Amino acid sequence: MSWIADPEFAPDKPFGPQTLPYGVLVTGSGPVVAVRVGRHALPLRGIADSLGPRLADLVRGDSLDPLLAAGRPAWRELRERLTEIVTADRAPAGADLVRTDWHTLVLPFTVGDYVDFYSSRHHAENVGRILRRTGAPLAENWTHLPVAYHGRAGTVVVSGTDVHRPFGQRKASGDPQPAFGPTRRLDFEAEVGFVCGGEPAAHLSTADFPEHVFGVALVNDWSARDVQLWESQPLGPFLAKSFATSVSGWITPLEAFEHARVPTPEPEHQLQDYLVEDQPWGLDLRLEVRCNETLVASPRFEHMAWSPAQQLAHMTVNGATARPGDLYASGTVSGPERAQRGCLLELTWGGADPITLQDGEQRTFLQDGDRVTLSGSAPGQGGSVVGLGEVAGTVLAAARR
Amino acid sequence: MSWIADPEFAPDKPFGPQTLPYGVLVTGSGPVVAVRVGRHALPLRGIADSLGPRLADLVRGDSLDPLLAAGRPAWRELRERLTEIVTADRAPAGADLVRTDWHTLVLPFTVGDYVDFYSSRHHAENVGRILRRTGAPLAENWTHLPVAYHGRAGTVVVSGTDVHRPFGQRKASGDPQPAFGPTRRLDFEAEVGFVCGGEPAAHLSTADFPEHVFGVALVNDWSARDVQLWESQPLGPFLAKSFATSVSGWITPLEAFEHARVPTPEPEHQLQDYLVEDQPWGLDLRLEVRCNETLVASPRFEHMAWSPAQQLAHMTVNGATARPGDLYASGTVSGPERAQRGCLLELTWGGADPITLQDGEQRTFLQDGDRVTLSGSAPGQGGSVVGLGEVAGTVLAAARR
Repeated sequence: MSWIADPEFAPDKPFGPQTLPYGVLVTGSGPVVAVRVGRHALPLRGIADSLGPRLADLVRGDSLDPLLAAGRPAWRELRERLTEIVTADRAPAGADLVRTDWHTLVLPFTVGDYVDFYSSRHHAENVGRILRRTGAPLAENWTHLPVAYHGRAGTVVVSGTDVHRPFGQRKASGDPQPAFGPTRRLDFEAEVGFVCGGEPAAHLSTADFPEHVFGVALVNDWSARDVQLWESQPLGPFLAKSFATSVSGWITPLEAFEHARVPTPEPEHQLQDYLVEDQPWGLDLRLEVRCNETLVASPRFEHMAWSPAQQLAHMTVNGATARPGDLYASGTVSGPERAQRGCLLELTWGGADPITLQDGEQRTFLQDGDRVTLSGSAPGQGGSVVGLGEVAGTVLAAARR
Repeated sequence: MSWIADPEFAPDKPFGPQTLPYGVLVTGSGPVVAVRVGRHALPLRGIADSLGPRLADLVRGDSLDPLLAAGRPAWRELRERLTEIVTADRAPAGADLVRTDWHTLVLPFTVGDYVDFYSSRHHAENVGRILRRTGAPLAENWTHLPVAYHGRAGTVVVSGTDVHRPFGQRKASGDPQPAFGPTRRLDFEAEVGFVCGGEPAAHLSTADFPEHVFGVALVNDWSARDVQLWESQPLGPFLAKSFATSVSGWITPLEAFEHARVPTPEPEHQLQDYLVEDQPWGLDLRLEVRCNETLVASPRFEHMAWSPAQQLAHMTVNGATARPGDLYASGTVSGPERAQRGCLLELTWGGADPITLQDGEQRTFLQDGDRVTLSGSAPGQGGSVVGLGEVAGTVLAAARR
């Protein structure tokens, strides 16, 4: 029986010993690297002596950056050592559990580049139908490569950060002139993010994925749909996305998803060699999206057409390096059912079909004061459940400095 | 008469005392911050005592990062102090001039986010005509806002770095299937980049530009045109640009361009308030593009329709912060004349009309071994000339690791 007396630290709970996500939380002595155990967090600086000098150096600081750079052998060793420590009968010297609900999480790593994919066919087709109306819903390239664009790394914020409604230009097709002001079509996008680590490297194969991806985090890619519609031709979204992207404060290590692997859907034609996977790296991640207290969507990552290993291979096939701290997200996770759509644009079909919240209020897009919360989990070994750290953020009224 | 005995350190030369760009070059004791004086560089660590403790701390390290963060008052003070030092009769204690051609420059700052604008109307219209062929050459939004997208910060490289021909998928409209391989349409784009500094801030006005932009550098935004054509719908360019972006190793301070300011072309309709400039911040920068030894284009920055101050205001109007180290580029600088076009796509009209080099060879797009060099200058006070650091890079054959 573990020395950690926390009923949430159990295999059938999302943050039991099968999960052990890493984060950085603020204690009396400043930000410290910690591992989550149930409702508690175990700061690693205090138990550094139990980890040995090499591992201790990776987690003694105030961010995950050194750990991300260290690479897969160190990640595996640290996880094994921490598993021993948190499942032992007695606490190691210096162990000082803190309550996660009493301490603030900060962004746990320095975001290098942020890339956003577009890998749900259901999402891409729905968006094509809603926004473009005529012609094929999917561009011709979509089934041949995982479409993506670069987002703004400097505005990636940790869960809990409130988000001001952004300003921007908008012009619907009937408007004579563009207007400027706070967006009228603020949306969330429920996504899954992958945090890179290891040596910077290019030309990665799908088989290299575990060597260059440290862990998994939920991502809310906030979007201003009216701004997006007006600005995106011909170079893609810019200000519609760059005001804020929220990421979980807890990064769940890739090893925790060993039992959640599922094949990706069969492609409809032969793929280029670099996109062919030796092993399946689709993941059975079950997401929940809440607006205020209402569950508004339950997207499933298994419906994604492109896997994170294919995304990594594509992102680096031209010769671009993936660096420690680079973050890439899946794109909105949407499935075939209406209740599996990962953004309001799809859930309300472009605002034509509002959703109703528990309190009876209706929403087409987000209102000031709305709180969006993403949570998720995956199957673990023997019926256990592996948790993803939640991503929450409240919409604040538009404000200039 | 200055203690610096270098005929290139003169007001009528690009790197005279009116310019004083900053860079980081590798000396026997490692990378050091230096200021360029003619053919020489003056490492600032050696003369730190002459700068006073506050300024010394900003330039004693191995990158410009602390200086970028320090903000405009410190930038002004350092430039004034260095101007006194390099124009004095006697060398300060510890001064040790080094030859710029004997020492390697490294990337002088940590690139935060990299944004690429599309602000030459000539370029945008030419590209529209070449690639889209039918319909209006310019998207409707183009005259209302400075169109832009995020690029990859992690593959920004310093001048002198050779660039491997990137791989990617391509599919021309007649091809039955996409093909994969080294790009067949490798291009340069001659651009002007702006390096941000000061406190991270959002909602910047055009008047805030000098407080948040440290200096100016030439940028070659290498592009794989066949990859770009196939991948860019609907989210914009990704792998076609992300393999490498070359930037000058010398960053010329904004103050040096005080006498190069020109109005931007009159907009064809009323702009949104946040894009209206109190003062002109168009710049009379004269660029030269060489392929091997042949001058292939002489673009002029005064032809840009959107100014760097308007670009900064647009980039942050939604609430996104500009951080020290963020780099934004103008987009390809092209003018109304054929000889003023800043990329091969335009110069050869999509490959239909090859250019001829001095040695009689023809080019539609770049061949392995080609060396592309961008240089540029601006008018300074009283007939002096202000130099921009050159950007050079040689195309290497495609190679996987």
